[in-house]
Amino acid sequence: MAAVVVIMADFAAWSRALRTRIETALDRVLPAGTLAPERLHAAMRYAALGGGKRIRPLLAFAAGEAVGVPAERVEPAACAVELIHVYSLTHDDLPCMDDDDLRRGKPTCHVQFDEATAMLVGDALQSLAFEVLAMADGEPETRVEMLRLLARAAGSRGMAGGQAVDLAATGRNLDLAELEFMHIHKTGALIEAAVLLGALSGGPLAASARAGLEHYARCVGLAFQVMDDVLDAETDTATLGKTAGKDAAQGKATYLTLMSARDARAYAGELVEDALAAVAPFAAAGGHLADIARFIVERRY
Amino acid sequence: MAAVVVIMADFAAWSRALRTRIETALDRVLPAGTLAPERLHAAMRYAALGGGKRIRPLLAFAAGEAVGVPAERVEPAACAVELIHVYSLTHDDLPCMDDDDLRRGKPTCHVQFDEATAMLVGDALQSLAFEVLAMADGEPETRVEMLRLLARAAGSRGMAGGQAVDLAATGRNLDLAELEFMHIHKTGALIEAAVLLGALSGGPLAASARAGLEHYARCVGLAFQVMDDVLDAETDTATLGKTAGKDAAQGKATYLTLMSARDARAYAGELVEDALAAVAPFAAAGGHLADIARFIVERRY
Repeated sequence: MAAVVVIMADFAAWSRALRTRIETALDRVLPAGTLAPERLHAAMRYAALGGGKRIRPLLAFAAGEAVGVPAERVEPAACAVELIHVYSLTHDDLPCMDDDDLRRGKPTCHVQFDEATAMLVGDALQSLAFEVLAMADGEPETRVEMLRLLARAAGSRGMAGGQAVDLAATGRNLDLAELEFMHIHKTGALIEAAVLLGALSGGPLAASARAGLEHYARCVGLAFQVMDDVLDAETDTATLGKTAGKDAAQGKATYLTLMSARDARAYAGELVEDALAAVAPFAAAGGHLADIARFIVERRY
Repeated sequence: MAAVVVIMADFAAWSRALRTRIETALDRVLPAGTLAPERLHAAMRYAALGGGKRIRPLLAFAAGEAVGVPAERVEPAACAVELIHVYSLTHDDLPCMDDDDLRRGKPTCHVQFDEATAMLVGDALQSLAFEVLAMADGEPETRVEMLRLLARAAGSRGMAGGQAVDLAATGRNLDLAELEFMHIHKTGALIEAAVLLGALSGGPLAASARAGLEHYARCVGLAFQVMDDVLDAETDTATLGKTAGKDAAQGKATYLTLMSARDARAYAGELVEDALAAVAPFAAAGGHLADIARFIVERRY
């Protein structure tokens, strides 16, 4: 127990330091709010800065660390995956999608600005993600592969496709296979990209290392989603920083419509064990990758 | 006069052949409508296939030709710029933007499907553009530069930024400098990217060739916009394939709020002369690049 507390204290300090690093990096890559078109740039900064768990950048940094890539070389990949994530949140909150007015404890982008601006914010953040990744130093062949991976993860066979499945599923009963198909696309694809891009920031990967990281990412992605559903049902809006209990209210399938909260927690625990096994061969048994996996089942928001 | 007719007949055959080529290429890179999520993929195909002037792909092919790159090597770049263009049209037509129900002679994507799907169509087409460009063969360092150029042209300091300026300008009187700032971003950035990406599909460019192509693209981009405003005012909806006279009705600034149609045509003519001069040093005096410039001032829709 004492060992766990020490690991978590180290993890808390590590993630705090890297959250500061990613905030600084995003602040640098986002155009200044004084640059024309000012309102768009201000809205992009509003959406992207000053909040969020930054799970995807943390995964990128931790994956880089697992294969010996220093944080400064991982930064462009960490920014790119977070920009894709923020773009998807901004679009997902729009009235024609989830119609949400609270995100990261603040009014959503279209509430604070307007719908057209929020749509352009998402569009431009997606472009910026690719621009940031393409501008980074590094061996060009791997860089092209990273750009391809990110594009695939964001698109219709990845995150955007998962959103479409989610839309189509509202009000329907999904079985576990259908629910996981949705999550593997909607959140899993970008989480996998975060891990792979972090590791590839140092150059090409051995096939075995890549396979281990992919398996880790898939398990962690699902565990994250299972716990999201548990927390969404059990936690209040103020603690979550977004509207609680909304999925259930909208008739969306969640893990808790298929199993008890106790079974869902147990399932997340199994996925995390699987993730830990996949990164056990890396230095320090996966180091902060392992810590992130553990954090996912222990987090409160 | 006979020489002009011959050139235009050759241009018509050339552009018809390449429109068929780009249609086939887009059909191949777009996921099948039978692949999950089916509705999203069907909507992406609906938005991207079967219509359009394909000006940007034609510019990419012509620029490739001007520096000796065969059409098959230009295809990924031609697809990528058209996918970005179609994504922007799909989002631009949404109710929170221009709220248009007719595009390329068909109901717009959100009318045919629904708003949420149309938003995801645009999002996923943007990702697909980068994926297609990243998957192409070719020297990786130039490929990374092409991806960076496309991202920059699509984003807040390019096309998406131009859309934001356009939104902010509705109902205001713009002077010529402000109007051109908007167009240089909203349409010019992607036209320039089409030309540069076409030429870069063969590898790095000499600085003088690149400068000539950039100048050509800027002139052609503005001439295209000037003529768009003239045609929008003078042509009926059926011929245009989109709602005519809409910009003026929405209180948007156009060239015709700043000058007569006669002066606008003359201005477009001057820009085209400038564009022709910029590509004169290339083989066959710019070949089809020159033809496209001439076509822009002579087109009827």
